[in-house]
Amino acid sequence: MTRKILVLPGDGIGPEITAQASRVLAACQARGLDVEVEEAPVGGTAYDLEGSPLPESTLAKARAADAVLLGAVGGPKWDKLEDISKRPEKGLLGLRKELGLFGNLRPALLYPQLAEASSLKPELVSGLDIMIVRELTGGIYFGQPRGIEERDGQRVGYNTYVYSEAEIERIGRVAFEMAQKRGKKLCSVDKANVLEVTMLWREVMERLAPEYPDVELSHMYVDNAAMQLVRAPKQFDVVVTGNMFGDILSDAAAMLTGSIGMLPSASLNESGQGMYEPCHGSAPDIAGQGLANPLATILSVAMMLRYSLGEPELAERIEAAVSKVLDDGLRTADIAAEGAPRVSTSEMGDAVLAAF
Amino acid sequence: MTRKILVLPGDGIGPEITAQASRVLAACQARGLDVEVEEAPVGGTAYDLEGSPLPESTLAKARAADAVLLGAVGGPKWDKLEDISKRPEKGLLGLRKELGLFGNLRPALLYPQLAEASSLKPELVSGLDIMIVRELTGGIYFGQPRGIEERDGQRVGYNTYVYSEAEIERIGRVAFEMAQKRGKKLCSVDKANVLEVTMLWREVMERLAPEYPDVELSHMYVDNAAMQLVRAPKQFDVVVTGNMFGDILSDAAAMLTGSIGMLPSASLNESGQGMYEPCHGSAPDIAGQGLANPLATILSVAMMLRYSLGEPELAERIEAAVSKVLDDGLRTADIAAEGAPRVSTSEMGDAVLAAF
Ligand SMILES: CC(C)[C@H](C(=O)O)[C@@H](O)C(=O)O
Ligand SMILES: CC(C)[C@H](C(=O)O)[C@@H](O)C(=O)O
Repeated sequence: MTRKILVLPGDGIGPEITAQASRVLAACQARGLDVEVEEAPVGGTAYDLEGSPLPESTLAKARAADAVLLGAVGGPKWDKLEDISKRPEKGLLGLRKELGLFGNLRPALLYPQLAEASSLKPELVSGLDIMIVRELTGGIYFGQPRGIEERDGQRVGYNTYVYSEAEIERIGRVAFEMAQKRGKKLCSVDKANVLEVTMLWREVMERLAPEYPDVELSHMYVDNAAMQLVRAPKQFDVVVTGNMFGDILSDAAAMLTGSIGMLPSASLNESGQGMYEPCHGSAPDIAGQGLANPLATILSVAMMLRYSLGEPELAERIEAAVSKVLDDGLRTADIAAEGAPRVSTSEMGDAVLAAF
Repeated sequence: MTRKILVLPGDGIGPEITAQASRVLAACQARGLDVEVEEAPVGGTAYDLEGSPLPESTLAKARAADAVLLGAVGGPKWDKLEDISKRPEKGLLGLRKELGLFGNLRPALLYPQLAEASSLKPELVSGLDIMIVRELTGGIYFGQPRGIEERDGQRVGYNTYVYSEAEIERIGRVAFEMAQKRGKKLCSVDKANVLEVTMLWREVMERLAPEYPDVELSHMYVDNAAMQLVRAPKQFDVVVTGNMFGDILSDAAAMLTGSIGMLPSASLNESGQGMYEPCHGSAPDIAGQGLANPLATILSVAMMLRYSLGEPELAERIEAAVSKVLDDGLRTADIAAEGAPRVSTSEMGDAVLAAF
């Protein structure tokens, strides 16, 4: 059965990097992968074209797809939009929510070839391999009530950080299963000494633990987790946390590797349908110049093959090709040492295809 | 007029480190500082003695004091207390709220003598000097409604992230004034692309900016701020943010220095009354063994002299004495290089007094 893939280039460098990833997808088709690939607009680009960051037609195509590949959304052009429901980010948040993509997997993996790019001392990060499991459709991102309103003569802004047991259990299971497949250590991050919602979080994680006796569960407060990531990141295997803390910690963890331009991510729903995207943003400052690193997006295709399309061998081939081009010394600007030669976005794509 | 200082040793290593700081206070008295020093219980210790982490008598003494010196609170012994209003942390949060200590100053300063303790490459942190201004009596820490309750047959946990314009303006002014006294750069951290409460935050910061034309105001999303702290921390001068983000970012920033045992903090109210405490926690694992580093608490006394007692010269003397003992190579376990000789908590206190 032919499966459907929807590519959403988005804004900024999105179109350039998804173009290279699409070439890799085409190479997979040439090797027998039976997929149909379609494109649609999202984010600021979609707003400019159709007046909405998530047009109905894009959403309908995403629902019908087995997997979605997203470039990136956002840019200063749309930051001043008064109606915040029209901002590019709302397209992304809408996709996550509408597709029920609650399980966000964000690996922070140090490529040995790029070890010197880390701002941390080499011995602290060599071999770093953390998987952050972030809840993506709940928490304070989506909690109601929310807004800005007048109270006692002055304006007040408010949001609600809320999780139900079922939501916590669902993401907890993803994390425990991930830990079982990896180093069997799971660290749940919360702020249970202050926030009731995370007391419930901790309680549910504790309740799940006996079902995964091979996994060692620990708990850490979010402030301490931020410190420990800086101090001794290799202590972590799998980390599970809510939407907001996950946003912060996964970016910090990604930056530990020094090459956020290398890191893919997956966002999965209950039926294994997924959206795949690089961890980095839309980098409007370098858009359209052929400077962007397409590897995170290409590696997102590998994650898609593994998690949504059941093609682990093709996934490994892509990962091996990326490793090969790094071995060969190819570097886009973001991962090049000072003064070292750099390749363009499409030259990097060429090299991956040649190694594939 | 004799001013009143209340010392709250608290839990874990709290009593050991405040004991050394109290010796430094006594030395200040010997040099003419006109203060009366009293002690009272707080945290788990207070719970054990009087059934509350913030006994009425302690709160009354704190209200009457010109400044409070706190050791640290918390420990595993009290983590399982069912009634969370009795937990040690509630003593600390209660003090902050009751005294109106909304302005939390958390410096992240790299001592050149300890540069190699950082997990970051030396060139990225040498000379690091960030001041994080954290709002401390509002936001999600104190927002109502909050709790855990049954909804549609399952339990749900929730907290409210809320700020009024007046609360934002108040902390904004502290931060702008701090920036005026320092490098004239202020970075306000929010998540204005997702959370309404931080859209209001950003708006109020923007509104204040013209009143401080000598300060360059910028805005950063919290996920990016966490990354930038790891990538290039020296880009920051003063950072201002809410209670929760400030908790996370100030700990990450402190850890960049590699020696959180060195960092003091101040929490001020509208009338300049303040509570001073080390950035580190109660470290129950090493309590009572003379291993703890008293320098952060001693430096908290210096902050107290500067911000609440109007004695900048005595503050500088203490800071100079601390710098001298570091120059002399004295190190407690937390800041000693591997295999290097270590001094005990009280030996470190002796050395500071000798250098004072
Ligand atoms: C763009 C923004 C809404 C988004 C988020 O906060 O989730 C981004 O930071 C991310 O982590 O994917
Ligand atoms: C102990 C805890 C309640 C406290 C906080 O979260 O504010 C601590 O982490 C701090 O930063 O002072």
